[in-house]
Amino acid sequence: MKGPEKVIALDLPPAKLDDAMQAYFAKCREKLGFVPNVLKAYEFDLAKLKSFVAMSDDLMLAPSSLSKLERELIAVAVSCANHCHYCLVAHGAAVRKLSGDPELAETVVANYRAAKLDARTRAMLDFSWKLTAEPWMVGEEDRTALRKHGFSERDIWDIAAVAGLFNMSNRLASATDMAPNAEYYKLAR
Amino acid sequence: MKGPEKVIALDLPPAKLDDAMQAYFAKCREKLGFVPNVLKAYEFDLAKLKSFVAMSDDLMLAPSSLSKLERELIAVAVSCANHCHYCLVAHGAAVRKLSGDPELAETVVANYRAAKLDARTRAMLDFSWKLTAEPWMVGEEDRTALRKHGFSERDIWDIAAVAGLFNMSNRLASATDMAPNAEYYKLAR
Amino acid sequence: MKGPEKVIALDLPPAKLDDAMQAYFAKCREKLGFVPNVLKAYEFDLAKLKSFVAMSDDLMLAPSSLSKLERELIAVAVSCANHCHYCLVAHGAAVRKLSGDPELAETVVANYRAAKLDARTRAMLDFSWKLTAEPWMVGEEDRTALRKHGFSERDIWDIAAVAGLFNMSNRLASATDMAPNAEYYKLAR
Amino acid sequence: MKGPEKVIALDLPPAKLDDAMQAYFAKCREKLGFVPNVLKAYEFDLAKLKSFVAMSDDLMLAPSSLSKLERELIAVAVSCANHCHYCLVAHGAAVRKLSGDPELAETVVANYRAAKLDARTRAMLDFSWKLTAEPWMVGEEDRTALRKHGFSERDIWDIAAVAGLFNMSNRLASATDMAPNAEYYKLAR
Amino acid sequence: MKGPEKVIALDLPPAKLDDAMQAYFAKCREKLGFVPNVLKAYEFDLAKLKSFVAMSDDLMLAPSSLSKLERELIAVAVSCANHCHYCLVAHGAAVRKLSGDPELAETVVANYRAAKLDARTRAMLDFSWKLTAEPWMVGEEDRTALRKHGFSERDIWDIAAVAGLFNMSNRLASATDMAPNAEYYKLAR
Amino acid sequence: MKGPEKVIALDLPPAKLDDAMQAYFAKCREKLGFVPNVLKAYEFDLAKLKSFVAMSDDLMLAPSSLSKLERELIAVAVSCANHCHYCLVAHGAAVRKLSGDPELAETVVANYRAAKLDARTRAMLDFSWKLTAEPWMVGEEDRTALRKHGFSERDIWDIAAVAGLFNMSNRLASATDMAPNAEYYKLAR
Repeated sequence: MKGPEKVIALDLPPAKLDDAMQAYFAKCREKLGFVPNVLKAYEFDLAKLKSFVAMSDDLMLAPSSLSKLERELIAVAVSCANHCHYCLVAHGAAVRKLSGDPELAETVVANYRAAKLDARTRAMLDFSWKLTAEPWMVGEEDRTALRKHGFSERDIWDIAAVAGLFNMSNRLASATDMAPNAEYYKLAR
Repeated sequence: MKGPEKVIALDLPPAKLDDAMQAYFAKCREKLGFVPNVLKAYEFDLAKLKSFVAMSDDLMLAPSSLSKLERELIAVAVSCANHCHYCLVAHGAAVRKLSGDPELAETVVANYRAAKLDARTRAMLDFSWKLTAEPWMVGEEDRTALRKHGFSERDIWDIAAVAGLFNMSNRLASATDMAPNAEYYKLAR
Repeated sequence: MKGPEKVIALDLPPAKLDDAMQAYFAKCREKLGFVPNVLKAYEFDLAKLKSFVAMSDDLMLAPSSLSKLERELIAVAVSCANHCHYCLVAHGAAVRKLSGDPELAETVVANYRAAKLDARTRAMLDFSWKLTAEPWMVGEEDRTALRKHGFSERDIWDIAAVAGLFNMSNRLASATDMAPNAEYYKLAR
Repeated sequence: MKGPEKVIALDLPPAKLDDAMQAYFAKCREKLGFVPNVLKAYEFDLAKLKSFVAMSDDLMLAPSSLSKLERELIAVAVSCANHCHYCLVAHGAAVRKLSGDPELAETVVANYRAAKLDARTRAMLDFSWKLTAEPWMVGEEDRTALRKHGFSERDIWDIAAVAGLFNMSNRLASATDMAPNAEYYKLAR
Repeated sequence: MKGPEKVIALDLPPAKLDDAMQAYFAKCREKLGFVPNVLKAYEFDLAKLKSFVAMSDDLMLAPSSLSKLERELIAVAVSCANHCHYCLVAHGAAVRKLSGDPELAETVVANYRAAKLDARTRAMLDFSWKLTAEPWMVGEEDRTALRKHGFSERDIWDIAAVAGLFNMSNRLASATDMAPNAEYYKLAR
Repeated sequence: MKGPEKVIALDLPPAKLDDAMQAYFAKCREKLGFVPNVLKAYEFDLAKLKSFVAMSDDLMLAPSSLSKLERELIAVAVSCANHCHYCLVAHGAAVRKLSGDPELAETVVANYRAAKLDARTRAMLDFSWKLTAEPWMVGEEDRTALRKHGFSERDIWDIAAVAGLFNMSNRLASATDMAPNAEYYKLAR
């Protein structure tokens, strides 16, 4: 059940969740203490909710040689370039949680170039930023730069896919004025 | 079976398709005559392929008060702002096919503002362009502009979601130098 | 005689062509099958028409160590950066005709960086794009890059002059909403 | 004869002028006291020189309901947007000469929005700036704004054509590092 | 005495503070618990430190009809446009402290347009953002917009002056890689 | 006493100057022949005037291994990037006065890249431009470039501080439509 606070600026009545999604929301409440508003935003249409959950969970949680923290750092750097409120708050919290380092999270929210990152992580975020700000300029020299830092072919895909996912979510959040759950602001401080 | 031509600039050996995806690829070959390279690009990982297909098919093909042509017009306008080769070629072909109007397709590939569009379609593409180029500037006044042209709350979501999808795909295609199938160039001329 | 379709969004009655321009238009009809709308747009003033024809023909057709195809590739890359409908359609058609390669044309319309170009052609288009997007940043290091790829002093002039010409034409076309001839869309497919 | 100071950063030996161009250069020396370096830059190729002179003189000097000063103001505003050294110096001097108001010239070189201009001139320069900075965004609403300030269809063409000319010249000057004649700096102070 | 952690990426040994500055630093320690690193960064030169303190304290703390919180909101919105790590952390903390609303602070750090602000505050930040991103476009219509929301002539100065101050500080912080004090991250959570 | 010409577009009655500021204004009249309008603009509030004078005089006039001319060149290059009328006129005049080279001044007003500068000065202005246009991109590699040209740690601070000062002043001047004194246009021609 949606609370009195609006999750997005569009008026879209929630659909009935199927068993799988009820279980998924229950798991969110159990693990996080709440259902992320991005999921509630999608609640109006079960097919959309399910395809978003499938893609997002695969990219952010499934096995990859990119750690979950690395993937969240990409999420935050992309969301910083796009000035996306929802994603900076929600994934800034995820960086706090995964790194145990609230300063790192706040720094990457502001500008990842100011964070003390190893050269590999820095290259990963430079690629993600360029792909966000000027995708048409990305080319072989950028992939080569990643390979020089030890990223595999699959890693390059994963970096691009996570950066791509947040270029999508940032826009959906901005287009709908999506509000982060109040809990995110306090998570893992 | 992948041909000798590389689909993307990353070396990612294809995984074995499950029955559902084999059927899906067969249906592509039957309907289109070929499997779109974006799907072959995802072929290295079944979970990723499936979540992309689910999301993309839901947004581009499932019932919506936006026609399929309208959704393809958004795809092309977004891809033009991002100068995405793969998506301009593949979705330019889709506009030709759905509209039966190759001039319209080529015009929107170049600049949708030069196309003879009704005010509603123009507003839809203005929103999509702004959401692509400056997502942080989108706000209530932009949603209001869409509502004035008769778009419902759900329609606004759908416009944003399609624009979001291509802001993701454009970046994945640019990051991997994804090549469109040769067939796309000739489709529905 | 102008057809019922408006060539530009300005209402400018055509002037009487002199013999030279009548012969020129006749030659267009003979060679191309039609008079390009950019010429009809200029038809309201004979002096303007003649100076445009003189400059454009000199830059695009007169002897130069840049091939005609190379010059058309510059035209298309510049027009892509400026999202110019008229020039992308008309000069995209010229690339098809001169190269016999419709895929190449469509690729350069989308983003020349995705085309399979030799390093020399790529450098030529990189220079043209930078000169279009940030002319104030172009300097000796950019000329040196061209010289390293074998371009002569005169070649550098020609690249800049063609890029300059389309930065002019793109703006005249956008300012007047110039429509390409219907024939261009089908030419050399 | 070219002096010891290089006019452009390219090494292009001057061609032999024909009688018409000799007369033209003589007239420049008589009226201005010198031959503008842009003409010396073109001196390596007679056809290019002549087509540039024809177009430039037609646009800047031939009858138009835009005054010569208005056309020079467009030249300077466009060149300011493009940070073009040659054109700001040469056409800044032209504004001084035609207006008798060196403060006006220096102000428009810096930012035309700071000059005390009537609303009509301001609209003309707003159009020229937008056409320079974001040509793809120019549309019917921009032409309507000019019409509201009393500009005719032909005037709109002329504004666009002059703005276009300097978008070409600015790029040729930047690409070749064209140096203004020393005399320009002192002209009409 | 500077601690082991470098405050900026430049090696500038601290000068000896005079009595006034010793007292000032003491007051910082008393009130805040620490001396802000921006002051330590200036510590190498007493005259620079004092002029910065004088200007900054006058603009941020002296009487003005803009509240201290409003001034800090401008600081954060400007620093967001400039992606300035130091200022987002330090002035984000100031917004938390003055508003007692950590969510507001984090929202304005991300994108002030997502915050629930009254129209007057929104107009103030819209002006500050435009002045930051495109100062050359600011004109009478922007001042008029502020006046319509009840801002006085003096208020407009104050908004511009605070926005100006952070356009300066953001650049000094970025140029020197200025690190915020660790205490700021936890302040007023 | 302010003359009939408005100095800024805001109506802010001048405050009474204290003895120090009266002496300062008298010295301006004695040395320059007039009180710079930026000071008159600040005259409405003595504390603001004094802190601006202190900071500005320290940065532009106090001992530094950057010459006064170098500091004025930074002022002009930054003001060019920001298209600031007041600062281009006032500090263009300062460059003329300090260099005795009006051509240099006019060139840097237009685009410092066209000026014949030694590599060290060019590096200084490249840093200042980047810090102005994209402060978030400035990092260790940019400081290293300055160090390679012989700039000390303190010099880097000074370059950043002067560039920062004009990023502030440019915005205050644009926000208030500050008019340069008429005398500046003629100074040191």
